[in-house]
This record gives sequence, structure tokens and C-alpha cells, in this order.
Amino acid sequence: MKIGTYSFEEFLEVVESFHGHSAPGVLMGGFMVTYAMEGLPRDILVDAISETPICLPDAIQLLTPCTLGNGWLKVINLGRFALSLYEKYEGKGVRVFMDPAKLNGKKEIRNWLFKLVPKSEQDRDRLIAEIRDGGRSVLGISHVRVKPQHLGKTKRGAISNCTKCGEPYPENDGPVCLACQGQSPYV
Amino acid sequence: MKIGTYSFEEFLEVVESFHGHSAPGVLMGGFMVTYAMEGLPRDILVDAISETPICLPDAIQLLTPCTLGNGWLKVINLGRFALSLYEKYEGKGVRVFMDPAKLNGKKEIRNWLFKLVPKSEQDRDRLIAEIRDGGRSVLGISHVRVKPQHLGKTKRGAISNCTKCGEPYPENDGPVCLACQGQSPYV
Repeated sequence: MKIGTYSFEEFLEVVESFHGHSAPGVLMGGFMVTYAMEGLPRDILVDAISETPICLPDAIQLLTPCTLGNGWLKVINLGRFALSLYEKYEGKGVRVFMDPAKLNGKKEIRNWLFKLVPKSEQDRDRLIAEIRDGGRSVLGISHVRVKPQHLGKTKRGAISNCTKCGEPYPENDGPVCLACQGQSPYV
Repeated sequence: MKIGTYSFEEFLEVVESFHGHSAPGVLMGGFMVTYAMEGLPRDILVDAISETPICLPDAIQLLTPCTLGNGWLKVINLGRFALSLYEKYEGKGVRVFMDPAKLNGKKEIRNWLFKLVPKSEQDRDRLIAEIRDGGRSVLGISHVRVKPQHLGKTKRGAISNCTKCGEPYPENDGPVCLACQGQSPYV
């Protein structure tokens, strides 16, 4: 079974190169993205939502035109290991998720998904083999429609220099930029 | 001047392939990441913050080991076109930003940064030439220390099935998952 246009072994290498290691979540994500793509018409512009910031955004970025920086991928952290791909303007698409009812016989996937054993005690080779051989069999898929407020890009409006830090920022954020309003992550 | 290990023309192609088109923001981001990397010791593990979700995350993901999905890149949307790279555990690093005081003679960069003309009226070739020839000259750099609460990964705690949708979710999120608490982006 292909992951996008890759064999599983080819995808392993692509994931190692981009993500730094062959993380189970990105490998599973490869099956999820492929499953979702097959559920969509071929001639549409696709946007994506990842329902977690963990691993899945990288599978989406590697296998679709959607990246975080081009705005076609959004992360809405709902804590679920799930993603959706949908037609950009109307929001009609498919959602693929981990289905716990389908984990019989997939001991290592269960251990990983529910964090039942510490990472150091996972049987990593067996986990990757379970994903390779049965990735799609543990997934569910459903039709979804994305709410209008989540479609398209956010308009930032006019940009001017913050009177406090002096850097350009969107005037809509307030009289000074969000960093100068106290949201800076720096000491 | 190199962008990471790429020539400007090579980086153009890498950006087109990943981001979909040679966006000025990712090209400028290439200079910003390169400038920041040079300000750091070579033998440390680096994490990254992008202060905007627009364009810069893709420059970081293309030129460093930090991706959204591996957790080494965080997006903290402050509306500023700025990024920081820092040592993972102590948070000491550098921040690179657009310096409006350095835009004299950079008409197209100014038009783009402050959105002074609609995208359709930008002189795109001249904008890219200004970035190629003077990318770093419009940047500022400063030492920063990232606050402890932004260092490392968020612990998710125990995972169990949501009693409403049936999918695995972090118990810390509440009695049901965040989607079932009303945050679902789907109709």
C-alpha cells in the first residue's frame, strides 16, 4: 500500500529527513492523509486541519500542498489524533481518526496511542511493523463540513509600527503589539 | 550570500516545492534563519519560535531540524515578522526581526511589509531582487532568553476514550474532549 506516491520504506526516509526520526505518529499520519485524499475529488483545492500539533502536521506538510506557513494547514488543538482535508471554499471534505474499536490484535499501536508503556519500553520495531502492515485498518473516516469561520485566511488589516517596540504589527491587535501587551515569550 | 547551505536560486526552488510558490516572506525568512543560526554556538540543540504563522514557519522548517510536528518549532502569534532560535534547555538564543529603520531605498520590501499596495500591484520581480540583494540589511538581531514556561514539550498526561465521541483524548482536557466541549470546527 502506497503512502501518497511513496512506498512505506521511501516514506520512512522522507520522515526521517524532515521530522528528524521515523516517529510512529508521522507514519500513521501518512496512512491517514492518504486515506483522506482518496475520499476527495481529484480536481479541487484542498485545505487541512490537524486536530493535534503532535506529528500529524508533518505528515500533512509532507504529503499535501498544505503547510503551516502558506496557511492551507491549520492546527486546531482538540487533543484528538485526527485530521481533515476539505475543499477550500465550501469546506466539504473528510475526517480521518484513530478508531479505538479497531485496535484488537494491535498491541503496540494501542500501547503507543494510549501511552500505556513509557517510550523507553515500547517495542519500536514491532510498533512500526504494525503500522506498516495494518495502518489503515485502525482508522475511521467520516464526511465533514468545516464551519465558515474556519475557512480562508484571517485578514490582518493595516500594519504600522508599534509605538513601544518599534516593530511592524497589525493595528487590529490594539494600541501596541501583542508582545508589548504582555504576551512576549522572552524574559 | 548563502541561505542555510543553499544559494538564493536553490532556495527559491526549495521554497516553491514546499510552500507552493516563492513567497517573499519565506525568502526573507531564509535570511532571518541564516542570520540567527550564525549567532548561535554550533554544537547545541536548537528550538524555534515564530512570532507569526505566516510564511516564517516554513523558512524555519526548511532550514533547521525544527518542525511543527516534532515540537521543536512553536508558533506564538504576536503579529510581528520575527523569529527566535535558542538553546533548547536554557532558552538562551537570538531573535531576528524586520527593522523599519533600515528600509530606506527598499521600496518594494516596504510596500510588502506594510501592505502599502495590493498584492496584484506589487512589482514582484523587483521585490524578490530587493530581498536577494539586501535581505539581511533590513534585519535587526538581539539576544533573548525564552521564559521557562515556553521551554520543552507540554505533558499531555493520561489518554482515555471520550465518553461522547468515543475517540482517545487527554483526560486533562476535561470529562469529554475539547471537540465535544464545543470547540469542533465542523458543522
